[in-house]
Amino acid sequence: MDKVTIVGLGLIGGSIGLALKAAKLENVQIVGHDKEPSASAKASKRGAVDKTEWNLINAVEGASVVIIATPVMAIKEVMQQVASYLREGAVVTDTGSTKASILQWSSEILPSHVSFVGGHPMAGKETPGIDGAEATLFKDKTYCIIPGKNATEQAVRSVVSMAELLGANPFFIDAAEHDSYVAAVSHLPIVLSAALATATSRSPSWKEMSRLAASGYKDLTRLAMGDPEMNRDICLTNPDSIVRWIDNLVDELAVYRKQVLEGKQDTLKETFDKAYEARDRWLQGKIDDKPSLMAQIPGAGERMAGLLISDRLAQRSRQMLERADGQGKGKQPKG
Amino acid sequence: MDKVTIVGLGLIGGSIGLALKAAKLENVQIVGHDKEPSASAKASKRGAVDKTEWNLINAVEGASVVIIATPVMAIKEVMQQVASYLREGAVVTDTGSTKASILQWSSEILPSHVSFVGGHPMAGKETPGIDGAEATLFKDKTYCIIPGKNATEQAVRSVVSMAELLGANPFFIDAAEHDSYVAAVSHLPIVLSAALATATSRSPSWKEMSRLAASGYKDLTRLAMGDPEMNRDICLTNPDSIVRWIDNLVDELAVYRKQVLEGKQDTLKETFDKAYEARDRWLQGKIDDKPSLMAQIPGAGERMAGLLISDRLAQRSRQMLERADGQGKGKQPKG
Repeated sequence: MDKVTIVGLGLIGGSIGLALKAAKLENVQIVGHDKEPSASAKASKRGAVDKTEWNLINAVEGASVVIIATPVMAIKEVMQQVASYLREGAVVTDTGSTKASILQWSSEILPSHVSFVGGHPMAGKETPGIDGAEATLFKDKTYCIIPGKNATEQAVRSVVSMAELLGANPFFIDAAEHDSYVAAVSHLPIVLSAALATATSRSPSWKEMSRLAASGYKDLTRLAMGDPEMNRDICLTNPDSIVRWIDNLVDELAVYRKQVLEGKQDTLKETFDKAYEARDRWLQGKIDDKPSLMAQIPGAGERMAGLLISDRLAQRSRQMLERADGQGKGKQPKG
Repeated sequence: MDKVTIVGLGLIGGSIGLALKAAKLENVQIVGHDKEPSASAKASKRGAVDKTEWNLINAVEGASVVIIATPVMAIKEVMQQVASYLREGAVVTDTGSTKASILQWSSEILPSHVSFVGGHPMAGKETPGIDGAEATLFKDKTYCIIPGKNATEQAVRSVVSMAELLGANPFFIDAAEHDSYVAAVSHLPIVLSAALATATSRSPSWKEMSRLAASGYKDLTRLAMGDPEMNRDICLTNPDSIVRWIDNLVDELAVYRKQVLEGKQDTLKETFDKAYEARDRWLQGKIDDKPSLMAQIPGAGERMAGLLISDRLAQRSRQMLERADGQGKGKQPKG
């Protein structure tokens, strides 16, 4: 029996559990741990884990794979607490929103006999926590994979394989690049959303104003209701890139401000046309331009069904890929 | 046969048509006009109107109610084109996102023998145009009503009644207040969303970066895909309030920027807690604090079923209100 441990049973950890359980892996036991007993209880009830373990050390001992799905700063604490108890050859991965700090911590804290492979599934939704968890959360989403310096090839393949089991598109990326990119497309939106919520709600007219707030306001402030601890940790571990992008956005707002004051029809129309087209191209691109995992695994000369833990899992992954191919998903290796 | 004319068969005009048709008003003909023949054809096909009329003058001639549901600047053009052809006692309303300019135009352009009652349903959705139209778009949404200076009481009641037929909550408000409030909760979000889309997509790393953009980016840029003409017109007709709110937001971003740079755990946590709570309270408030129309109609001493056109309609509206009350919607007059 192989043991896979999920530490942190929130939206992401819970969804990973549900997806792995849905894959009906044979001889694999999914163990869950959360510092909140209520989250553990809900995860059990929803069938996201085979069993829960209150004690973190017990949860990770003997595990082949440990998935840390907590807010970023807590990932460091978990690493510190479990480092001495990880089994030889264990694969440790995470789902944190920033990667450079986490990779740094892994090399400082984890023993050399385990492999750390950072991960970041680009998925989220409004309902937070285990209540929002769903097996299909990662379907067709990009799953960033950032192997630690000493990670074995098999460990990397394990995490790739896991991402595929979740229905996601694994995507190799450098930690610094990752942090710089997500500052623009994920962290800046969080800051904007929170700033919009606090700036408007502080207005003396907020009571009357709030009656007129509708779906647009709702969308733009959605990220303000992300877990405050998670958002804080993102800011703590990616400050330079976030500040650079706040500055970029403020510069952009200055351009819009000037155009609004000038009130030139053509200029304003052009600006909103550009914004429309930018987002439209992105939406289209998301459909046409799915990252091709196979072409990116270093040394992948043939179809690769990564090993999560064992051959059984690899076989299961292959079956799923073949089924997906049969449905015209086009996951064939390129080139 | 009473004639109700909808000018502009986009998301809002089309949805009004669908909702009025769903109310199965007797002896009322819904006529639609759009400068785009394809929009008219789709509106017909979807059953949003009883007939379409290519010629704008023909469309409004003899109409008891004219609903102008075009972008803001086009509302002025429509007023200019139809002013001489409106029937005595006709009610003219609109659905524009800014109100002071429109009220001003109505008093300058429309003849004194018609009543103008400005309207602004606080509803929207991602799919624009007639394709996105749905009868339930306005259900439980706030519907701002801003009567022109010379509007008759019956005309005001007609538009109130129409808003109720759409399932919305009519809400009386002053034009200047309206424009100042929507600048914060509707127009600023549009500018932010567009600025986020243009600032990120202009980055030299956009191609790689865009792969990591996920649901958060999607939500925050949704408004960037609003109709560029509509967004331009909003900026042209509400510049001062929009600029004031851009400035407020930039000030707020400066606070966030400082906190990110300082990297103090407690301060950052407090800030994101505040943002979370602000939005949470708003969401809750939306449920508990529905505007009570009845208490707000000047001089309304008794239950008031507004007259859209005739007693038949008033009866229909009363029936709908009673049905709603039966479902515990609590639309009883207060005080």
